[in-house]
Amino acid sequence: MFERIKKSFDKQGLMQTLGAELVVVEEGLVKISVPFNQTLTQQHGFFHAGVSTSIVDTACGFAALTMMANDADVLSVEFKVNFLKPAKTSKLVANGKVIQSGKTLSVCEGYVYDSSENMLIAKMTATMITVKS
Amino acid sequence: MFERIKKSFDKQGLMQTLGAELVVVEEGLVKISVPFNQTLTQQHGFFHAGVSTSIVDTACGFAALTMMANDADVLSVEFKVNFLKPAKTSKLVANGKVIQSGKTLSVCEGYVYDSSENMLIAKMTATMITVKS
Amino acid sequence: MFERIKKSFDKQGLMQTLGAELVVVEEGLVKISVPFNQTLTQQHGFFHAGVSTSIVDTACGFAALTMMANDADVLSVEFKVNFLKPAKTSKLVANGKVIQSGKTLSVCEGYVYDSSENMLIAKMTATMITVKS
Amino acid sequence: MFERIKKSFDKQGLMQTLGAELVVVEEGLVKISVPFNQTLTQQHGFFHAGVSTSIVDTACGFAALTMMANDADVLSVEFKVNFLKPAKTSKLVANGKVIQSGKTLSVCEGYVYDSSENMLIAKMTATMITVKS
Repeated sequence: MFERIKKSFDKQGLMQTLGAELVVVEEGLVKISVPFNQTLTQQHGFFHAGVSTSIVDTACGFAALTMMANDADVLSVEFKVNFLKPAKTSKLVANGKVIQSGKTLSVCEGYVYDSSENMLIAKMTATMITVKS
Repeated sequence: MFERIKKSFDKQGLMQTLGAELVVVEEGLVKISVPFNQTLTQQHGFFHAGVSTSIVDTACGFAALTMMANDADVLSVEFKVNFLKPAKTSKLVANGKVIQSGKTLSVCEGYVYDSSENMLIAKMTATMITVKS
Repeated sequence: MFERIKKSFDKQGLMQTLGAELVVVEEGLVKISVPFNQTLTQQHGFFHAGVSTSIVDTACGFAALTMMANDADVLSVEFKVNFLKPAKTSKLVANGKVIQSGKTLSVCEGYVYDSSENMLIAKMTATMITVKS
Repeated sequence: MFERIKKSFDKQGLMQTLGAELVVVEEGLVKISVPFNQTLTQQHGFFHAGVSTSIVDTACGFAALTMMANDADVLSVEFKVNFLKPAKTSKLVANGKVIQSGKTLSVCEGYVYDSSENMLIAKMTATMITVKS
């Protein structure tokens, strides 16, 4: 399962650009992290909201994909993110978890933590759709 | 007004990493574009949803900032994005527009178009908060 | 088209309970209004956010339905609402408009106005799914 | 604390109209239920999405209020709801839980269950604002 997800992850140019790493792949759960870099900041020098969103969207999408047929692919229909704390940390860790896996649509919850994985920085709810790969 | 926003835009490492350009700054309206690059893709070779989201979040935040006091700064409280079309284009063009500017909170609508600016690729609604800079 | 939507509207017990009226049905656009009543309030005596949401969700769903096959039905996948102004008015007027109509999913924008239809009280973005009736 | 919330709950005309009951009030957690009634339905005879949303919005708002100063009041800034299962049950049970309580803004997660409290029917994320009562 890790190989299947890793293959798709490696095709995502943005994940490499952000320096993202695929950390965990389990059924219904994917974890992705990004170490801090000045190339990823907003105007105060912290991680840009777009970085948190990019990795947690990818984590949610892949989490949904782990529960789909082998020949399926996944696209983001929509997501919503609340930003709870400033993303002032040496590493962002995003968890995507499936809360409902349907034939057509899946719903995922995404969590972006700081490097300690104790402070919740951002919270996503995402709707994903199954497509033919 | 352009100078004020440009100064903050230039501090955002992520905007440079994405190759984003600040195109228009008017009261309540900011436009940002990003030309296509393999470094910005998802698994099918189109723009990653995270790129659309990053630039339209920044456009919405700056649009809100144009209507705040000169010494104010802006942070994203939350946003929601619907992805309407595959981001298969040579350039993404994001418009952020203020629909309500309050003392504490502002609400913005964000639109991500393809290079022709005719096809709507993604639609954001964002809540921004005024903070001291 | 009005008859088709009216038939479904009349089956919704909640619309009658709220005193809602189906005002306009066009392709991709449905308007529903509710006059003020003490039975519809939140703690300050204005319309409860749940009333605005209920009628604009219904308006969006029916707007999507106007663009589907005659034997189709519609369900709400998800929606997001921003509350912009206190709902202090003698009548709420909700407009649901389709911004994308797909085979499976439709995306709608919903607007809740005061009785003058000039003041925007709430703004919805909704994802609807086509189901068999 | 229950008395404080109950007083505000009783002022909400809509809660009485829906037949809603305030079930639990703890710091950061409020539970509200509604028994099924034909007056609360959508076109298929199940609970209308507006009912689920109304009670879980109220539960989230009151949950936020339990963590505010005694003279504060709460308003919904925005919320997003995903509908996971048909609301085909004899009773809806909504839980509102605070995940972040700030001076100005609070963020809550809302869960709507069926009568067994085992099946998750809808999931909300809400932003609430502290106002003077």
